[in-house]
Amino acid sequence: MSEKPTVLVDQVPKVVVLRLPQYVRALGDLLKRHVTVVSSQQLGAYLQMTPAQIRKDLSYFGRYGKQGRGYPVEYLLSELRQVLGLEKVWNTCLVGVGRLGRAIISYPGFTPEGFNIFAAFDLEQSADVGGNIGRLVVQPISDMERTIQKLDVVIAIVAVPAVDAQSVIDQLVSSGVQGILNYAPIGAQVPDDIQVRNIDPVLALQSMTYYLSLGSEALSE
Amino acid sequence: MSEKPTVLVDQVPKVVVLRLPQYVRALGDLLKRHVTVVSSQQLGAYLQMTPAQIRKDLSYFGRYGKQGRGYPVEYLLSELRQVLGLEKVWNTCLVGVGRLGRAIISYPGFTPEGFNIFAAFDLEQSADVGGNIGRLVVQPISDMERTIQKLDVVIAIVAVPAVDAQSVIDQLVSSGVQGILNYAPIGAQVPDDIQVRNIDPVLALQSMTYYLSLGSEALSE
Repeated sequence: MSEKPTVLVDQVPKVVVLRLPQYVRALGDLLKRHVTVVSSQQLGAYLQMTPAQIRKDLSYFGRYGKQGRGYPVEYLLSELRQVLGLEKVWNTCLVGVGRLGRAIISYPGFTPEGFNIFAAFDLEQSADVGGNIGRLVVQPISDMERTIQKLDVVIAIVAVPAVDAQSVIDQLVSSGVQGILNYAPIGAQVPDDIQVRNIDPVLALQSMTYYLSLGSEALSE
Repeated sequence: MSEKPTVLVDQVPKVVVLRLPQYVRALGDLLKRHVTVVSSQQLGAYLQMTPAQIRKDLSYFGRYGKQGRGYPVEYLLSELRQVLGLEKVWNTCLVGVGRLGRAIISYPGFTPEGFNIFAAFDLEQSADVGGNIGRLVVQPISDMERTIQKLDVVIAIVAVPAVDAQSVIDQLVSSGVQGILNYAPIGAQVPDDIQVRNIDPVLALQSMTYYLSLGSEALSE
């Protein structure tokens, strides 16, 4: 158990990294239910993936499962949390405090996972600037760079209207933010070394209707 | 142009389907800017993908780009919209009318894209049941099956707390819903023929911190 997992960073496909948080959630659920060992079959059923895919994904991060014995839940969870950097606190800010931004601030899921929203910004002309939301004072975007550097903010959540989003993202990047969770329905343009994830329900729906259309065509033929 | 694209359904990897809505958005933006032809290089720069990936993705849906001439924007957009089933109206319902559900109902992006929320439900004991949200009357979940069948609802948006989500999803599936946009932070269990997309900001953040951790380790070493 003292062997450090050898993570061959450049060899882990992004699609595998994108799945790892689902493993963490599944293993956390299993641990809560006092499951100590889980097979790739069980994990596959839980995550709706094939056992072969599970074994392949996890093999990038070390030899966790002994042949025929399954994976030790608590150990694998702890290792994956470390691999994903989930044991740290990630200083986060929010830009845009409209209806969506307020829902984000009040969402109870971020802080327990280490994503602490330490600052909130809105456009200069917004009536919300200077007001309070919970324990945060809404600051104008002109203060963004200074505050981000002072508070060592690494991640920004963008919840401004589409028309303002790229300009806000440009300013966040030049302020030193390294990761952006973008709720605006735009294809954000960022330098290669900046991580972006888009939360976009319309794109998600549109990727379902491809399959739903096939179904209904099959029925009508 | 009269040639129908031959879509080899089973041969289109899901990861390509998941990207198609981004192509549709990019092509729509280009069309608004009166761009008539776009190269795989230009589209790649816009979508932050390689030109080779763009050409490979689009090759599943027909021979759109003539060698060296680029893709005809309006025609490709129209074909991809058809492939994705975006020309139809998709009758949609919402389950859960708390803060998140209300933000979803008031989000102006769904209806123009053909996702019309025709019904809203909440848990039986909710004080919101019987009340109005915009033009919708909030119905109890006990009415869900009947309403879904009467209105021919195909897609459901789930915005209930995590603890209630799997039970709601089970009832949606047994009511005949084929696609679920799930905002609850759970790994939803559904039959193979049901489409699920998860909107989960914590999972998105956790897949960024993998890369952000690598960056900060590299700096501290």
